[in-house]
Amino acid sequence: MANIKEIARMSGVSVTTVSRVLNHHPYVSSDKRAAVLKTIEQLNYSRNMNAVHLITGRTKAIAVVLPHIHFFYFSVIMDGLAKEALLAQYRLILCQTNYRPEEELKVLDMLRNKEIDGVVIVSTALDPATIEEYTEYGPIVTCQDSGKRSFSSVYIEHYSAFRHGLQYLVDKGYRNIGYCEGRRNGSSGSIRQSAYKDFFTERGLAVHSEWMLFDCLTEEDGAAVLHRLLNMKERPDALIITGDHVAAGLIIEAGKYNIRIPEDLAIIGFDNQPIGRLLGLTTIDNQLFEMGAAAFRIILGQINGDVSTEPVYQKLSYRIIERTTV
Amino acid sequence: MANIKEIARMSGVSVTTVSRVLNHHPYVSSDKRAAVLKTIEQLNYSRNMNAVHLITGRTKAIAVVLPHIHFFYFSVIMDGLAKEALLAQYRLILCQTNYRPEEELKVLDMLRNKEIDGVVIVSTALDPATIEEYTEYGPIVTCQDSGKRSFSSVYIEHYSAFRHGLQYLVDKGYRNIGYCEGRRNGSSGSIRQSAYKDFFTERGLAVHSEWMLFDCLTEEDGAAVLHRLLNMKERPDALIITGDHVAAGLIIEAGKYNIRIPEDLAIIGFDNQPIGRLLGLTTIDNQLFEMGAAAFRIILGQINGDVSTEPVYQKLSYRIIERTTV
Repeated sequence: MANIKEIARMSGVSVTTVSRVLNHHPYVSSDKRAAVLKTIEQLNYSRNMNAVHLITGRTKAIAVVLPHIHFFYFSVIMDGLAKEALLAQYRLILCQTNYRPEEELKVLDMLRNKEIDGVVIVSTALDPATIEEYTEYGPIVTCQDSGKRSFSSVYIEHYSAFRHGLQYLVDKGYRNIGYCEGRRNGSSGSIRQSAYKDFFTERGLAVHSEWMLFDCLTEEDGAAVLHRLLNMKERPDALIITGDHVAAGLIIEAGKYNIRIPEDLAIIGFDNQPIGRLLGLTTIDNQLFEMGAAAFRIILGQINGDVSTEPVYQKLSYRIIERTTV
Repeated sequence: MANIKEIARMSGVSVTTVSRVLNHHPYVSSDKRAAVLKTIEQLNYSRNMNAVHLITGRTKAIAVVLPHIHFFYFSVIMDGLAKEALLAQYRLILCQTNYRPEEELKVLDMLRNKEIDGVVIVSTALDPATIEEYTEYGPIVTCQDSGKRSFSSVYIEHYSAFRHGLQYLVDKGYRNIGYCEGRRNGSSGSIRQSAYKDFFTERGLAVHSEWMLFDCLTEEDGAAVLHRLLNMKERPDALIITGDHVAAGLIIEAGKYNIRIPEDLAIIGFDNQPIGRLLGLTTIDNQLFEMGAAAFRIILGQINGDVSTEPVYQKLSYRIIERTTV
């Protein structure tokens, strides 16, 4: 890039004016600002894009906060984000934080430091109030239901979806229903735990806390669930499992022990993963790809000012896909 | 950020000098450059990081080129990259290109435009000669064996690994060996096709081109392979499959048709995926996580000048994990 004096000379403005444009100083006439930007555009031989970002005030980059990219749930949301980002010629900065709050705060600081145009938070260890402190610096979209906050969200109603799954099992005649969850203290997980307890309490039934199984994150955790069940005195006859790959692990392990699905144990999963389709797994499709795509569209609209910068709360629908495990 | 005049005044240098530092002009004394950088550091209230990047010449960001983030192979390499990036406090820009060469070139242009400090190419549609044209702009590392090029690479020897798999099947008594591949024209796929043909030709055996099955990318493609086999007049008695999730799809589908594994069909996979472990799948572990981690360490070393900027060619080992499907 040419130096600032050269830009000033070619634009017919002072060095101070160029400097003001560079620094987003408000007291620059729009004519002069346009002249400077045009000169920069013309001088784009071997340009340094950091200078361009400095000048345009746009980085065309969005940060994505998630804990583990290789988990199906997150990688499919990322795929939805990435397909839209490619269309819009935006860049996604993957911030794999492993739920470390200090790393998540660093990403939000990037927004404050104008390194990025917005942040999509797929899953977080931060509480919504902390996230709200950053909304003055630029658009933020979360992929979980955080209520009516000063940032946007795209979400499915986990409470309702989970109860829907329980009701489906009850309608099919199951009464002893267990529950496999990923993180005990996760945001969606906490909602589902409430849904589970409320569902049985409302019906005057006992809540079997020993049937609430946590830390079920991988296929192998699913296989381990079978052994936890086999060691129980009183077993559930149906399970609702948050993650088809976890359910797949359980089903494969059950096959080795001649536990029949659904006769001995009915299973309903979440996520509608390919492995679940192959295993005939009944599941709740929660539109993960669409969640990522929608999050990107909302944030892009807010960056471009196409839509109001008021927060958007987009609820996605879910549906039960009936197959053969219930 | 303060404006340039202010930085000049505080640093005790001219506006021209500040501008030269900003633009990486060579004719600035190191004293003056240090004074300017120190002032910027002190003025870091509400700083614009794009200005900092412009000044330091470092973005602390690396672009990662891959086709589809939600495929296990790529998401595990990305996990390896992301864990190292977090340690180094670097940012990864995910460029999901779907193998579109024009998009991949745009990422390389980011390197030329100094928007990033380096590029990791996990899988690409570009030929190595095209990538070489960009090595003058900064470090590039590929995760495939491209020979001794002017960019670095981390790879396993697919030719040798694949032949190793074939030899393992032959040693176990199998003679009619088929092969399931992802992309017909992919870089690693082409190498494996040569390995397959060479292996049989060298032994004076026929190469059954009808047993070379392409476009096997997903679990469901694996299930479809079973049906392709069932429709064959003469079937292979063993398969080598590039991707444990594809093999898993085939095994699950085989269970529905009472095809016994390995008695009716032996299977060896690639990638050592969790679903393969559960199914007792014999597989070739090609160290995907380590591939991502190593790619990051190489590029970081080159950015920081800790190592020579000469290209590094790091070969990772592979190993056959013996389970029950052969």
